Amino acid sequence: MAGWTLAEIARRLGGRLVGTDRAVTGVRPLESAGPEDLSFLANPRYRPLLERCRAAGVLVEPGVEAPHLSLIVVDRPYVALAKVLVFFDRRPRPVPGVDPRSALDQGCVLGLDVSVGPFVSAGPGCRIGDRAALMAGVTLGPGVSIGEDAVLHPSVTVYDGCVIGARSVIHAGTVVGSDGFGYAQEGEEHIKIPQLGNVVIEEDVEIGANVTVDRATFGSTRIRKGTKIDNLVQVGHNCDVGENSILVAQVGLSGSVRLGRGVVFAGQSGVVGHVSIGDGSRIGAKSAVTGDLPPGSFVIGYPARDHAEWKKTQAVLARLPEMRRRLSRLEKRLESLSLSPNRKET
Amino acid sequence: MAGWTLAEIARRLGGRLVGTDRAVTGVRPLESAGPEDLSFLANPRYRPLLERCRAAGVLVEPGVEAPHLSLIVVDRPYVALAKVLVFFDRRPRPVPGVDPRSALDQGCVLGLDVSVGPFVSAGPGCRIGDRAALMAGVTLGPGVSIGEDAVLHPSVTVYDGCVIGARSVIHAGTVVGSDGFGYAQEGEEHIKIPQLGNVVIEEDVEIGANVTVDRATFGSTRIRKGTKIDNLVQVGHNCDVGENSILVAQVGLSGSVRLGRGVVFAGQSGVVGHVSIGDGSRIGAKSAVTGDLPPGSFVIGYPARDHAEWKKTQAVLARLPEMRRRLSRLEKRLESLSLSPNRKET
Amino acid sequence: MAGWTLAEIARRLGGRLVGTDRAVTGVRPLESAGPEDLSFLANPRYRPLLERCRAAGVLVEPGVEAPHLSLIVVDRPYVALAKVLVFFDRRPRPVPGVDPRSALDQGCVLGLDVSVGPFVSAGPGCRIGDRAALMAGVTLGPGVSIGEDAVLHPSVTVYDGCVIGARSVIHAGTVVGSDGFGYAQEGEEHIKIPQLGNVVIEEDVEIGANVTVDRATFGSTRIRKGTKIDNLVQVGHNCDVGENSILVAQVGLSGSVRLGRGVVFAGQSGVVGHVSIGDGSRIGAKSAVTGDLPPGSFVIGYPARDHAEWKKTQAVLARLPEMRRRLSRLEKRLESLSLSPNRKET
Repeated sequence: MAGWTLAEIARRLGGRLVGTDRAVTGVRPLESAGPEDLSFLANPRYRPLLERCRAAGVLVEPGVEAPHLSLIVVDRPYVALAKVLVFFDRRPRPVPGVDPRSALDQGCVLGLDVSVGPFVSAGPGCRIGDRAALMAGVTLGPGVSIGEDAVLHPSVTVYDGCVIGARSVIHAGTVVGSDGFGYAQEGEEHIKIPQLGNVVIEEDVEIGANVTVDRATFGSTRIRKGTKIDNLVQVGHNCDVGENSILVAQVGLSGSVRLGRGVVFAGQSGVVGHVSIGDGSRIGAKSAVTGDLPPGSFVIGYPARDHAEWKKTQAVLARLPEMRRRLSRLEKRLESLSLSPNRKET
Repeated sequence: MAGWTLAEIARRLGGRLVGTDRAVTGVRPLESAGPEDLSFLANPRYRPLLERCRAAGVLVEPGVEAPHLSLIVVDRPYVALAKVLVFFDRRPRPVPGVDPRSALDQGCVLGLDVSVGPFVSAGPGCRIGDRAALMAGVTLGPGVSIGEDAVLHPSVTVYDGCVIGARSVIHAGTVVGSDGFGYAQEGEEHIKIPQLGNVVIEEDVEIGANVTVDRATFGSTRIRKGTKIDNLVQVGHNCDVGENSILVAQVGLSGSVRLGRGVVFAGQSGVVGHVSIGDGSRIGAKSAVTGDLPPGSFVIGYPARDHAEWKKTQAVLARLPEMRRRLSRLEKRLESLSLSPNRKET
Repeated sequence: MAGWTLAEIARRLGGRLVGTDRAVTGVRPLESAGPEDLSFLANPRYRPLLERCRAAGVLVEPGVEAPHLSLIVVDRPYVALAKVLVFFDRRPRPVPGVDPRSALDQGCVLGLDVSVGPFVSAGPGCRIGDRAALMAGVTLGPGVSIGEDAVLHPSVTVYDGCVIGARSVIHAGTVVGSDGFGYAQEGEEHIKIPQLGNVVIEEDVEIGANVTVDRATFGSTRIRKGTKIDNLVQVGHNCDVGENSILVAQVGLSGSVRLGRGVVFAGQSGVVGHVSIGDGSRIGAKSAVTGDLPPGSFVIGYPARDHAEWKKTQAVLARLPEMRRRLSRLEKRLESLSLSPNRKET
C-alpha cells in the first residue's frame, strides 16, 4: 500500500527529521511498531520503550535522543499524532447519495453530496447541509437542521426542531431532543410540563454513543462548539454546555446547568440542577457537584469539594478506626488520671 | 398566530385575572417573556424578576402583587403552567396511518387511527390500541401489546410478550423486555438462566430515552401506573416499581427490587437486589440503598442512611484532618502530664 | 401443552427423583408454583416455603426433605434450573431467511440458515456465520464479522471492521465499535485522535441492552469469551476484559483497562484508565478503582480499597459526630487538669 516518507510527514507537521528518511505504511504504539510503522512517544514515562523499538520512525518532543532510530521532532507529539493519524485513516467513509430505501419527506432540503443511508427517515422541513452523512436507521423529526459535513451514525434520533452544527459528529444510538424531565405534582400524580423548546448542538461537537440530550422546556438546551461528549452521558433540559468542554462517559447533568468554557467532568460524575460551573473547572470522577463553582475550580467527592482538602480527608479516613481506639485510650487514661489524687506518690 | 386571552386562560384554569385582559401567543420565563407572552412565577425566589418583567400576564399564587402586570392568580402556578402549556403546544404530532415502508406481521391487530411510521416492524400477534403511535424504526417482538394512545418514539424496542399501557410514552432508543441478568456459576463459566417472563408497563407511565427495563425470569417486571422514568435508567428483572414513582436519570435498580407508591430515586442513585422500599421514600442523588426501607424514608450516601445523620457526619468529615491533629496534641500533652510527677512544682 | 415428566428431567440433569413421578408443563418459583409446575430451592433461606409449596416437583440439593413433595435431588439446583429452563423455553426464535426489506451489500457473505430481519443493513465485506440472527434494524458497518449462532437483537449497531464471536448475544440498542474518546489538546481546542482499531467480542459473550463498547485507537478492544455484560455499561477504547468476567449494569471502564479472568464489577462501579485488575477480583457496587489490583482483590468504596478495611471505616463513620464531641470534652478536661496545680488538694 502506498505510504508516506518520514521527511514528508515531518514537513507537514512542521517538525524536523533526525536520522534516515524511510517509508512508513502505518502507525503503531512503541511496543508493537514494526519496521514499516511510524510510532510516537507522547508520554515521557514510556521513554524506556524507545530502546527496543523497531519502528521506522518515532514522533518525539525536543530533547529526546535515540541514535538507532529515525526521529521526527515536534513540539507536541500527541497533537502531531492526532494529525498524522488522519493521513493513515483508511476507515470507510459514507458515500454521497440517497439510498432509495430511505424515507425523506418531500419537504426536506438536501445540500450537495449528502449521504443518506438505508432506513433513514426525516420529517417535513428538515434541512441537510452539504456533505452531511445520515447513516442507516437515523431518524430526524420534522424541522431538524443538520449542518455541513456533520455525521450522524446509525440509529441516531433527532427530535423535531433540533439543530446539529457543521462538522459535528454524533455516534450511534444517541438521542437528541427527547422531552426534558419536568412534572408538576398534583396530589400523588405527576402532571407533565410540556417541553416546547429544542436542542442546539453547535459546530465541531462530537457526541458519543447512546447519549441523551433533552430538549428545553422553553428556549434551547445548548452544547457549544468544540465540546466533546463521551458515551452514555445525560444532558438535562435547558443545560448550556460551554465551548470546548469535556464530558466523560456516564456523566449526568441535571436540568438548567450552565457550564463555562473548557469545563471537564470526569467519568460518572454529576451535578444537581440550576448550578453554574465556572470556566476551566475540573470535576473528579464519580463526584457530585451540589452548588455553583468559580472558574478554575478543581473539585471531587460526594458532595464535591476542593480537591486538595478532599485528599487530606481521604488520607485520614483510612485511619478512622485507629483514631477511635486512640480516643478511647485517651479517655481511659484521663479517667485514671482524674481518679488518682495520689498519682504523684505512685 | 391565533392566541389566547388572559381571561380565557384564567377561566380554564379556574384562576382569577387581576389587571387588564390581553392576548397572548406564547409562554416564556419571566426574564425572557415579551409583551405577547404569558409568564409564570412558580418558585418564590424568582419574585424579584417580576419587577422588570414585560410579559402580557403572569401566573402567580395568591398574595403576589405587581401592579404594573396583569396577573392570573391560581393556587399552584406550576400545575397551572403544566396545563396552560398544553394550549400552546405546537409541536408536531404523529399522523394516523400506516407507513407502507413498515413491516407489520399479518397477525397484528391494529386499533383505530393508529400511527405507524416508516421502518417499524412488529412480530406476529401484536395488538396496537386505538390512536397509539409507533414512530420510525420502532421494533415490536411477537405478541407485544400497546395500549390506547401510547406513544413509542423512534427506535424503541419492545421484546416479545411485553405490555405497554394506555397513554404511556416511551422515548427514543429505550429497550423494554431485554433478558434479565441471571447466570448460575458452574466452575468458571456462567450458565444463562433463561428469562421467561415479560415486562408490564402500566398506564400513564413516561419513560425517557435509552432506558433499559429487563424482562422477568418468571412472571413480570412491572412499572405501575403514573410512574415517570428519566433517561438512561436501568430497571432489573422482576422489579416492581410502585405507582407515581420517580426515577431520575441514570438510576439503577438491581433485580427483584420492590418500590412502594410515590418513591423518588434522585439521579445516579441505585439499590441492591431483593430489597423493598416503602411508600413515599426519597433516595438522594448518587446514593446506594443496601437494605429494606420503611415508608417515608429519606436516605442518602454510600451506603445510604438517614439524611439527617448523613448531614451531621458530612459536617464533621471536612474537619477530620484537624481532629487528627487535635488527637495527637492531646496524646502528647497527656504523655507529658503522665511523665511529670513533679508537675505541680513546676 | 406437551410437558415433561419429573423422571425424564431427573435423568437429563443427572439427578435423582425422590417421590412420585408426575408430568410438569412449566417452571415457577416456590410461592407461585401450581400442581403442574416444577419448582426449585436454589437459596437455602427459602426452605420454609417448601412447607406450603404445591408444585408437582422441586429441584433441591442433597439433604433437603419434604415428604409431601416429589423432589429432584441435584448437586447444584441453580445450575440445574438454568438447564431445565431451556426445556421449557417457549419464547419465539428468529426464523431462518433474509427479509426482503433488509439492505445487505452484495459483497456480504452469508452462512447457512442465517436469519436477517427487516431494515437490517450491512456494508460491503460483512461475513455472517451459520445460523446467526440479525434482528430488525440491526446495522453492520463494512467488514463486520458475525460468528455462528450469534444473535444481535433489534437496533444493535456494529461499526466497521468489528468482530462478534460465535454464540455471542447482543441485546437491543447496543453499540459496538464507536470511536474511542481520545483528543489531544491544542490551546483550548480538542484535536481528535482518529480511532483506527476495532472491537473483538469473542465467543459465548452476552452483552445487555444499550451498552457501548468503543473501538481501539490501535489494535483491538477485546471482550474475551464467556464474559457477561449487563445493560448500559461503558467499555472504553483498548480495554481487554478477561474471560468469564461479569460487568453489572451501568459499570464504566475507562480506556486501556485490563481485566483478568473471572473479574466481577458490581453495578455502577468504575475504573480509571490504564489499570490492571487481577484474576478473580471483585469490585463493590458504585466503587471507583484508581490503581492496579492483584488477583483475588475484593475492594469497595471511593476510592476503592480493601473491603474489610472499608467496612471498619464505615462502622466508625457514623460515630464521627460523637467522636468529635468526645474529643472536645477531652480537651476541656485536660485543659482543666493542666490549669489546676492544686488538683491533688481538691
